[in-house]
Amino acid sequence: MLPYLTDLYGNASSLHSFGRDAAAALDEAHYTVGCAIGARASEVIFTGCGTESDNLALRGVMLALRQAGSPRRTMLSAATEHHAIEATAHQLQQLFGFESALLPVDEHGWVDPADVRRILDARPNEIGLVSVMMANNEVGTLQSIEEIGALCRARGVYLHTDAVQCPAYLPIDVNALNIDLMSLSSHKFYGPKGVGVLYLRDGVPYVSTATGGGHERDRRAGTVNVAGAVATATALKLVSKRRETEARRLTALRDRLIAGVLERVPDAMLTGHPTRRLPHHTSFAFKGIDGETLLMALDIEGIAVSTGSACTSGSPEPSPVLLAMGIPAEWALGGLRITLGYGTTQAEIDTVLDTLPACVGRVRASVDFELRTPA
Amino acid sequence: MLPYLTDLYGNASSLHSFGRDAAAALDEAHYTVGCAIGARASEVIFTGCGTESDNLALRGVMLALRQAGSPRRTMLSAATEHHAIEATAHQLQQLFGFESALLPVDEHGWVDPADVRRILDARPNEIGLVSVMMANNEVGTLQSIEEIGALCRARGVYLHTDAVQCPAYLPIDVNALNIDLMSLSSHKFYGPKGVGVLYLRDGVPYVSTATGGGHERDRRAGTVNVAGAVATATALKLVSKRRETEARRLTALRDRLIAGVLERVPDAMLTGHPTRRLPHHTSFAFKGIDGETLLMALDIEGIAVSTGSACTSGSPEPSPVLLAMGIPAEWALGGLRITLGYGTTQAEIDTVLDTLPACVGRVRASVDFELRTPA
Repeated sequence: MLPYLTDLYGNASSLHSFGRDAAAALDEAHYTVGCAIGARASEVIFTGCGTESDNLALRGVMLALRQAGSPRRTMLSAATEHHAIEATAHQLQQLFGFESALLPVDEHGWVDPADVRRILDARPNEIGLVSVMMANNEVGTLQSIEEIGALCRARGVYLHTDAVQCPAYLPIDVNALNIDLMSLSSHKFYGPKGVGVLYLRDGVPYVSTATGGGHERDRRAGTVNVAGAVATATALKLVSKRRETEARRLTALRDRLIAGVLERVPDAMLTGHPTRRLPHHTSFAFKGIDGETLLMALDIEGIAVSTGSACTSGSPEPSPVLLAMGIPAEWALGGLRITLGYGTTQAEIDTVLDTLPACVGRVRASVDFELRTPA
Repeated sequence: MLPYLTDLYGNASSLHSFGRDAAAALDEAHYTVGCAIGARASEVIFTGCGTESDNLALRGVMLALRQAGSPRRTMLSAATEHHAIEATAHQLQQLFGFESALLPVDEHGWVDPADVRRILDARPNEIGLVSVMMANNEVGTLQSIEEIGALCRARGVYLHTDAVQCPAYLPIDVNALNIDLMSLSSHKFYGPKGVGVLYLRDGVPYVSTATGGGHERDRRAGTVNVAGAVATATALKLVSKRRETEARRLTALRDRLIAGVLERVPDAMLTGHPTRRLPHHTSFAFKGIDGETLLMALDIEGIAVSTGSACTSGSPEPSPVLLAMGIPAEWALGGLRITLGYGTTQAEIDTVLDTLPACVGRVRASVDFELRTPA
């Protein structure tokens, strides 16, 4: 991406040669991203982040359906979606006259396609869009996107998936998976922050709510971040090459970490599905403690972890995702996510396993101390 | 910005030390941008581009007014606004039940504050938001923002300005200029593409239409582009230092270019105001030719120019901005914008002056040839 931050700084919408050089790089980025997900270059839209992709997708389809006079005014999403979906569905309902309905999840955070079928069939011609994330950010659970997509398509319903967590670890083919719209975020697959991708299948009704110039074929106005698009395409190409090897390697490390934590830390549970989960993802709940306090204790030891979503950190509430999975609040407050990456080694996993039990112990002891000490 | 693309890659929303380092850099970027425009750090929102800032501003205020039960359902904007304003106002009207009204401009593209006063007073309690760009991108005309802002404020109307063209060349103080919301775009002041700024005055009603996590104090969801924010703040600090010197230097070069073009090219007119215009900006109309053909002829000579807005290039229509200024279509089709920058030298200006007349001549000759040749 560096040349496009320095010498090749043309605006891809300009007609002069500097602009045309930028436009050629941008065309190639569309093509590369398209190849990586089984889409046409014309179906790839560069945005400013995954959240923007989610916003454009949900707003775009629901508004287009209404514009076309469709009776389908309801969008259906899982109870464990990212805030970018949940808050957008909420605003579509509160401010724009649409309806929003929730798909239940099981104790692993999994959406049963039978529930999708049941709800779609119970409300024929009401639901216009289903949004189910490909893999949950907090608990790593993989959803049955292909099956959900087939159910939607057979009923004239569009399927959007937030696949932000996936490209570095899972192959994605939008056709094989029956996906109509998909959101990606570059920094989740080693690209830069500030770039998202929206896949929009040709023919899917869409009204752009990023209005202005005709950038990205009238589907997302705003001068395109050429350096970011080039970086995103390159990152996607690179992870495509390493994906299979890394997924296998990280799955083994992940399982070592899960087994070790459950063995060594009392009152610990794995959240999300034990095996149908992202290869690099572990998540736990520790009974009776606050996840953020544990996060800070681990940070002092040089171990960087997360509670729920980084996008909602700082809120001392039990994770809504864990609650939706039926996990009791005294556990859900103690949610912790430990994710691995291409650089993670077995030695690092073992360091976590050596460090975590004592950290949990210290946090629990301080909670006990506070409870015993009058305020 | 480079360290934030490589070693300091933390997510500013993460609570661990990598995240806190990123958050500290982001805090400083907010503060730096705030200082550069006379705002508080908390009033600065980083977005994905200037167009996104415009979208958030217009949608945000109009929706918030409706939410609060205000009767002010109309937004007023100049007839020569950027597409990011014009298309957003159009969508607010077409899809969301708001009203949109236009301010006329004079032959220089200038909005007379008396017209603002007249329209606001003729429609009391109807207009909620006025949007007038600080300087026009196509014709460089500077608007009387301070006066328009005072008129708005006295009537309980909010003022948004798209100031995307300005920071490198004009000092901006949001308080002195009576601005409530303002859009900036980093790549217009030597920052990277893919970063915008929205200034949002404390207390201005606003509903975020970028929904999701609580980033940017709940006003623009989406993982913040830390490298982009740092670069934007740094660029703004650097241009603040050079602004006065460069504005003086470029004004002289600009006037040399304007005088030379009008002297050497027959049937050429300056568009926009002769003196109340951006220091680095010239724009012309050449009678009877197509601006894009002239652009290509200049490009072959190594001179990069623009017709209307880069954001609408490729459309072979006369510029709506020039038409709104009362310029006849046979001239408006031949609009050309030649902008200068910090690197522009007098020798380059003289090269343009030596090259342009012949290019215009060749394009006119080819038009004449086509007209004389039966198809």
